Amino acid sequence: MNAKMQWLRNKLSSMNLQGMIVSNPVNIQYLTNLQAEGILLLTRKDNIYITDGRYTEYVNKTLTIFDEITVYDVKDISLDDYENFFLFCENVGFEENYLTYAKYKEYIRKFKINSFVETEEIIEKQRVIKDEEEIKSIKQACQITKNCFEYIKPYIKPGSTEKQVARLIDDYYCKNAEGPSFATIVASGENSSKPHAVPTDREFTNQDIITIDMGCVYNGYCSDMTRTFFIGEPTEKQKKVYNLVQKNHTQTIDAIKEGANIKQLAKMVENDFKLNGYNLIHSLGHGVGLQIHEKPYLSSRVDATLRENMVITVEPGIYIPGEFGVRIEDTVLVEKGGAQIL
Amino acid sequence: MNAKMQWLRNKLSSMNLQGMIVSNPVNIQYLTNLQAEGILLLTRKDNIYITDGRYTEYVNKTLTIFDEITVYDVKDISLDDYENFFLFCENVGFEENYLTYAKYKEYIRKFKINSFVETEEIIEKQRVIKDEEEIKSIKQACQITKNCFEYIKPYIKPGSTEKQVARLIDDYYCKNAEGPSFATIVASGENSSKPHAVPTDREFTNQDIITIDMGCVYNGYCSDMTRTFFIGEPTEKQKKVYNLVQKNHTQTIDAIKEGANIKQLAKMVENDFKLNGYNLIHSLGHGVGLQIHEKPYLSSRVDATLRENMVITVEPGIYIPGEFGVRIEDTVLVEKGGAQIL
Repeated sequence: MNAKMQWLRNKLSSMNLQGMIVSNPVNIQYLTNLQAEGILLLTRKDNIYITDGRYTEYVNKTLTIFDEITVYDVKDISLDDYENFFLFCENVGFEENYLTYAKYKEYIRKFKINSFVETEEIIEKQRVIKDEEEIKSIKQACQITKNCFEYIKPYIKPGSTEKQVARLIDDYYCKNAEGPSFATIVASGENSSKPHAVPTDREFTNQDIITIDMGCVYNGYCSDMTRTFFIGEPTEKQKKVYNLVQKNHTQTIDAIKEGANIKQLAKMVENDFKLNGYNLIHSLGHGVGLQIHEKPYLSSRVDATLRENMVITVEPGIYIPGEFGVRIEDTVLVEKGGAQIL
Repeated sequence: MNAKMQWLRNKLSSMNLQGMIVSNPVNIQYLTNLQAEGILLLTRKDNIYITDGRYTEYVNKTLTIFDEITVYDVKDISLDDYENFFLFCENVGFEENYLTYAKYKEYIRKFKINSFVETEEIIEKQRVIKDEEEIKSIKQACQITKNCFEYIKPYIKPGSTEKQVARLIDDYYCKNAEGPSFATIVASGENSSKPHAVPTDREFTNQDIITIDMGCVYNGYCSDMTRTFFIGEPTEKQKKVYNLVQKNHTQTIDAIKEGANIKQLAKMVENDFKLNGYNLIHSLGHGVGLQIHEKPYLSSRVDATLRENMVITVEPGIYIPGEFGVRIEDTVLVEKGGAQIL
């Protein structure tokens, strides 16, 4: 059994759970590397993956004997099979934040589950701490993003359009990685004041501000990076806002280490922005892994502590509606004594 | 209030439901045209949309007074507000196939709901019958797909790669529509034997078989079309399979009209394929609308009847592992006395 499955089995033991149904596909990918449609059952003795005809060939090719997972095609499972899977389990865990109410009822009936227990995101909570392999994949995704960034730099000039540059980025990611990890943002002029702007046909002018938010997927893992550029000389206001964002970006990264308090990190930026007449309208950052946005969320409403080997973004931003916006973002690894920019 | 919201209100009345929480984003788009993150409440008197700071500007711009929908930013809602929304409602409906178990419990607690009632996909079931506006949008999406098809025809020649042609299609859709409605399939040679093949760098040869499955989004609505081509002279086996698929494609469209039985349509193709030694390994077709795959599903396991103004695909296909595959697909409108290819 791989280390992650073994971890989950130990975790279930410690919670006095005798079985679990994992249905969140990202959690299944985390535990098994499988990217398919199906559910993973941990019964008293066996690990079982139930999928359908579209995926059986792929699943059987991907899993090895070492995984110790038995694969079933849903169409070959009898009513008796369903009842037998958890036959001697007094209780079975499920993912209450992923399972729909309809499936919740269906599983209790089909699997004859006596006690179906909420598991409070145990797997999501474990996913925040990355192992060596995961960090390697994220580092590589960040490296590809850095290279892509160098590749598009010459195109950030008057006459290029937002859509053209976004297309170049996406093409680069399709060739050099598994594709973009989210909808690439290229927002210029007024558009840069929208944190989630969609690229338009707007042409860059010879006096422009441009925010690019980009990331890719490598080996299943994501990267995330934002830069704001100027063509020509920025206005005094733009300079002031840029410097304020950059200062807070640097200060946050300097403050990140194992044990740092998330609430305090976010408060520090919020307060400095407020002192200057601005607001932080989105969170200061988020975890990055198999998903582009995952725990932990860096917000002043989250009273939690950073831990070693978390991978998070730091992305302070200021947006002035109808004028412009500035955001600077890096993906960093939390270490014992500090942060490593990936 | 728009016609779709009015329909839902009448439907709730007829089900003796005094309120409903709509959380499926596609259903919210159907009812309100909004494409954001949020939930729609139908209370005794009001229609309420709850979203967050990222979307409030967009939502307020998109809705008109005519919509009669009050917008709330989630951060401005007090505990009392939550309790007041459904204050005099004896029961409230919810979408059991969309709402997670955790949200189900949270809503009962937050909104102080006495009786939270499953609504058995009432909105999804209504969505299968398209109105005039919806049919117009799908027709336009199909027209753009037809034009795109003419545009790429010259590139279907020896030396082009699957990825190149897929890229041309996606670019065309990004320029002339809201983008592709699903991951474009360009599968040549052996690859064509996989129904869900992902485009590779394989070059077309001067004796090749190529399946292209493509569709776009226009005005929120999807199109879906597949063609199989030959470069050079097809083999006898390829000719035989192609003719068999084409014959069943035509026969199915000829049999489609209001009142036709879905099970019989699918059985007819399955049987003809079997007589010739082949199997229909996926469904014969599916509904098309705001989603690329929606109800009704044309399968021999679905004992239901086609109704006027359903929009469905007809896509028989035969796949010979390691050799080749053939699929022919059109999107059609079900009419009283027949089918209109869109």
